[in-house]
Amino acid sequence: MLLLDGKKLADELKQEIKLEVEQLIAAGGKQPHLAAILVGNDGGSLTYVGHKVKACDTVGFKSTLLHFPDEISEEALLAEVKKLNEDADVDGFIVQLPLPKHIDADKVIMAIDPKKDVDGFHPVNVGKVTLGLPAYVSATPLGITKILERYNIETSGKHCVVIGRSNIVGRPMSILMSGTAKTGNATVTVCHSRTKNLKEITLQADIIIAALGKPEFLTGDMVKEGAVIIDVGTTRVTDTTTKAGWRLKGDVKFDEVSAKASAITPVPGGVGPMTVVSLILNTLKAAKNEVQ
Amino acid sequence: MLLLDGKKLADELKQEIKLEVEQLIAAGGKQPHLAAILVGNDGGSLTYVGHKVKACDTVGFKSTLLHFPDEISEEALLAEVKKLNEDADVDGFIVQLPLPKHIDADKVIMAIDPKKDVDGFHPVNVGKVTLGLPAYVSATPLGITKILERYNIETSGKHCVVIGRSNIVGRPMSILMSGTAKTGNATVTVCHSRTKNLKEITLQADIIIAALGKPEFLTGDMVKEGAVIIDVGTTRVTDTTTKAGWRLKGDVKFDEVSAKASAITPVPGGVGPMTVVSLILNTLKAAKNEVQ
Repeated sequence: MLLLDGKKLADELKQEIKLEVEQLIAAGGKQPHLAAILVGNDGGSLTYVGHKVKACDTVGFKSTLLHFPDEISEEALLAEVKKLNEDADVDGFIVQLPLPKHIDADKVIMAIDPKKDVDGFHPVNVGKVTLGLPAYVSATPLGITKILERYNIETSGKHCVVIGRSNIVGRPMSILMSGTAKTGNATVTVCHSRTKNLKEITLQADIIIAALGKPEFLTGDMVKEGAVIIDVGTTRVTDTTTKAGWRLKGDVKFDEVSAKASAITPVPGGVGPMTVVSLILNTLKAAKNEVQ
Repeated sequence: MLLLDGKKLADELKQEIKLEVEQLIAAGGKQPHLAAILVGNDGGSLTYVGHKVKACDTVGFKSTLLHFPDEISEEALLAEVKKLNEDADVDGFIVQLPLPKHIDADKVIMAIDPKKDVDGFHPVNVGKVTLGLPAYVSATPLGITKILERYNIETSGKHCVVIGRSNIVGRPMSILMSGTAKTGNATVTVCHSRTKNLKEITLQADIIIAALGKPEFLTGDMVKEGAVIIDVGTTRVTDTTTKAGWRLKGDVKFDEVSAKASAITPVPGGVGPMTVVSLILNTLKAAKNEVQ
């Protein structure tokens, strides 16, 4: 059984990006610059944005964190988005979600210049990904395709079952896996809460992407011998033995499933670490004007 | 076996739209207006645009056909698109494809104001459909969902196999069928040219949408008893017994498959007639400002 080590791969990718940035700057190019808008003091959001800023440091990007109070008006936030759209020094930026309830997140995302939308959440980027055109693929799906690519997992002609149809993971993964690009060309089945005979379907899968957010949902009896397992779940479950009082659990019952799988991502240390580095990859693309 | 009569349904929908347009105008509203850009003299394109203009007449829409010679430059065509974007009287417009080779079709589609993109080809509309947001669904997929809806075909929890992953039919159908809207919530498998065990998969399907463009590809032995069959194929095959010298063939071997199906669309007279009326439905939506 091959452990798909996202942590190690993310570190390797960061080292590669760091070298490329050094070469870019040595050749007279501009230092890539990622900006992030953070509203309020949600603990999770603070942590995630912190990881992103730290990753920028690691790879030699410039980063700007714009932190606004919970009370910022939608209008004022849209004005900040407009400023970043127009700031020639900023290559790409993100608005950390979730936003407070008085702000329409769809409206804010629609206001981001698609050329700078390194989270890949703007409908233009989603549409281009759907059509197979060059675009920013959002971070988690991009991270998963990088794992498959770097570990040389064959996807063409394989049966891939995606559990979950969220706009953030399930939907884009099903589109990418069935598309014509590298790490695509799979026969893809999209399963979700309305699926009736899930086990019958997962037992046929050569590759399973579990992205439903239910801890240890995928058990050993649901998996074919030799399958490749990508676990996207990251649910915090209470654990009094840890300092934080919780630990992360994936959607896959690791001990059972890893005994049958040919390759599997752990949680933590699998898909999670690849998400931040994917945002960095998109920002590098933006700095190099590779999209649009 | 229930024949899913797209011709009859399209006529019914046109009568309903005609009534609604009369009421709209009686209430002091503006007559809906569809414009079409046609380049060159391709026989198929002339026929298709002709059908669209005729359907406008039937339902009481105003229509404008802008017909340009094959030699029109990309720049001049983009200027025509801009004019239609800015023409307040035009609610929606289409650029009939294919375009001559010296014109970049993607660039032309990107130039259409998404609010007037009643073909639903602009990445913003594709992205919104992917995200489950209100948008123009392109004509063939919209026509298929209307058939399923009007004939009360249950889709929730059913296993739907889509054969084909084109941007025009297969891809949007797999997204819509697995989405959360009405005529969605199906478990969807996307099959295509790289799929290895197609028959094994189609035999599991409650609903099959065949959109690969190979005449009589889907045979009786590939279909489960009681399945619902949607045939999107429209290939012209030589037939010396017809006046035109050809006739349309679907992707489904009708005699074999209809003997097992619980419901099936014929070719011609199934999905085809629903395509034009779907464009009319999108234009009505545009006139009523229901999208964006």
